[in-house]
Amino acid sequence: MEADAAKFIGAGLACFGMGFTALGLGYMFAQYLAGALRNPSAADGQFGRLIFGFAVTEALGIFSLLIALLLLFAV
Amino acid sequence: MEADAAKFIGAGLACFGMGFTALGLGYMFAQYLAGALRNPSAADGQFGRLIFGFAVTEALGIFSLLIALLLLFAV
Amino acid sequence: MEADAAKFIGAGLACFGMGFTALGLGYMFAQYLAGALRNPSAADGQFGRLIFGFAVTEALGIFSLLIALLLLFAV
Amino acid sequence: MEADAAKFIGAGLACFGMGFTALGLGYMFAQYLAGALRNPSAADGQFGRLIFGFAVTEALGIFSLLIALLLLFAV
Amino acid sequence: MEADAAKFIGAGLACFGMGFTALGLGYMFAQYLAGALRNPSAADGQFGRLIFGFAVTEALGIFSLLIALLLLFAV
Repeated sequence: MEADAAKFIGAGLACFGMGFTALGLGYMFAQYLAGALRNPSAADGQFGRLIFGFAVTEALGIFSLLIALLLLFAV
Repeated sequence: MEADAAKFIGAGLACFGMGFTALGLGYMFAQYLAGALRNPSAADGQFGRLIFGFAVTEALGIFSLLIALLLLFAV
Repeated sequence: MEADAAKFIGAGLACFGMGFTALGLGYMFAQYLAGALRNPSAADGQFGRLIFGFAVTEALGIFSLLIALLLLFAV
Repeated sequence: MEADAAKFIGAGLACFGMGFTALGLGYMFAQYLAGALRNPSAADGQFGRLIFGFAVTEALGIFSLLIALLLLFAV
Repeated sequence: MEADAAKFIGAGLACFGMGFTALGLGYMFAQYLAGALRNPSAADGQFGRLIFGFAVTEALGIFSLLIALLLLFAV
């Protein structure tokens, strides 16, 4: 396999990182929403923590996208 | 393996990213709907957060589609 | 591997994206139906949101189908 | 690998899409039946939505079958 | 890899589709039986829906079997 071919397969594999990140985010928001609908008066107080958890999780998906784009255009 | 062949396999692998994103979205909407049917009066107040979570999760699936389309047509 | 062979394997891999989307949709409808049977009077009010969630999730499966068909017939 | 060999492996991979679709359908019917046995009087009113969810989910499995048959006989 | 070898690997991969279908069916019957044992008087009324759900889910497993048999004997 040449180096050019390996770049493209690597970019495809990097999409797994985005997919699993989205699965984790989906689970996080799902449980927050389920809890917020059970106890709506407390939901506002926990929203800041949801945003914090979302930001650090989404970052990993963005890192996967960065690797995919670096593989396609930079290296 | 030539570079052209690797592009097509990479595009196929990128579809895993879309699939796992859809799995995460399905889980998020599922838990929201289950909670909303248990406590319908609070459902409207949490709908904005569902949309926020949906948007940032769907973005990761769109990034996977972007990688797949870049592999097929751009690089 | 030649480019023609890689197209066919890529199309097969793209079917994983459709399968995981269907798994997510199945979970979404499952939780909606379970909730609707527990509280039937609220089911009509949440049906619009089910349709919204269904549409944005199904879109990711259709994107996978698009990649598979592009691999077979367009590139 | 020659193109003919890749078609057969691609058709085998496409069966994963059907399998995961069946898993999603199984979950959907399971939760509907569990709910209907808990509250049989409401089951008839939600049956139309079950059929709707079944149809749009089954479609993704049929798309996978389409890709597999295209790989075997059309391309 | 020659085309004959790929047929046999493709037929093996197609069995995953049957396996996941069986997992979905197992879950469906499990939840029906759990519900029917909790409320036996309602079990007869939902049996028709169980058969309907079983038939459409089993179909996806039969499609996988079809692909496997086509790979072995027809193409």
